Amino acid sequence: MTTENFDTTEEAEIRALVNDRLVAIRLKNVNQLMYGYAPGILSFDVVGPLQYSGPEAIKARMEEWFSTFKGNIGLELSDLSIAAGKDVAFQCGLSHVSGTKIDGGELDMWWRETIGYQKIDGNWIITHQHSSVPFDVKSGKASLDLQP
Amino acid sequence: MTTENFDTTEEAEIRALVNDRLVAIRLKNVNQLMYGYAPGILSFDVVGPLQYSGPEAIKARMEEWFSTFKGNIGLELSDLSIAAGKDVAFQCGLSHVSGTKIDGGELDMWWRETIGYQKIDGNWIITHQHSSVPFDVKSGKASLDLQP
Repeated sequence: MTTENFDTTEEAEIRALVNDRLVAIRLKNVNQLMYGYAPGILSFDVVGPLQYSGPEAIKARMEEWFSTFKGNIGLELSDLSIAAGKDVAFQCGLSHVSGTKIDGGELDMWWRETIGYQKIDGNWIITHQHSSVPFDVKSGKASLDLQP
Repeated sequence: MTTENFDTTEEAEIRALVNDRLVAIRLKNVNQLMYGYAPGILSFDVVGPLQYSGPEAIKARMEEWFSTFKGNIGLELSDLSIAAGKDVAFQCGLSHVSGTKIDGGELDMWWRETIGYQKIDGNWIITHQHSSVPFDVKSGKASLDLQP
């Protein structure tokens, strides 16, 4: 895994997709975001259910999530690592999400994110994503206030 | 991602490692388990903290977790998918974990698991793992009783 500035071609390709995805989420651009997903995408999201299968389920979930924000979403990645081969790649790191919700509350939290890519017909596409927060064993609560 | 029986060489190699890892966890064999991890392993675990870096942190965590079980751990994978290239691969799926805790309680839960591999010096090694349960927005509780 690399966090260096000297990327291979594949690492540079993935890094460009990471940046495109960040912009799409910040601007709540669902259509742009969906462009990156494979038909067979399997998603493990921060909130339930256990899994989402297929782009339509993800699209509905993202539209619902985006609609809870007033204005753009703040999203920065920290400790991003990329492992990229010729036709399989993955990234992992921490996402810092912030913004004003339509109910007036402020969201400011970190979660872990892993994204898996495969090159299909010459194009990198996301076939798996996994976002989560850990939980606290004693309280059974999700740990929503952790920081790196 | 494939769930077929007709694996490429790399898929077969990863599938063998998946099975080795299952056996190591079931038998609570920490040393066997640690054999699969890269020096730069980054782990996002089901419980806090946000991340574990390096084999020593994972070893301590696994020893602690194993010690909470009376006897072996029940562990089965469901919906396993593997994407394997020449030198980067990942797997994702659901883990069903069960067993008797030393406090007498029974554990029986499902979580999501993603594991990333890189081939280094000719050997596949785990450079990233991400295990989690989602949480329920309304209660703020981790969802520990979900089933696929």
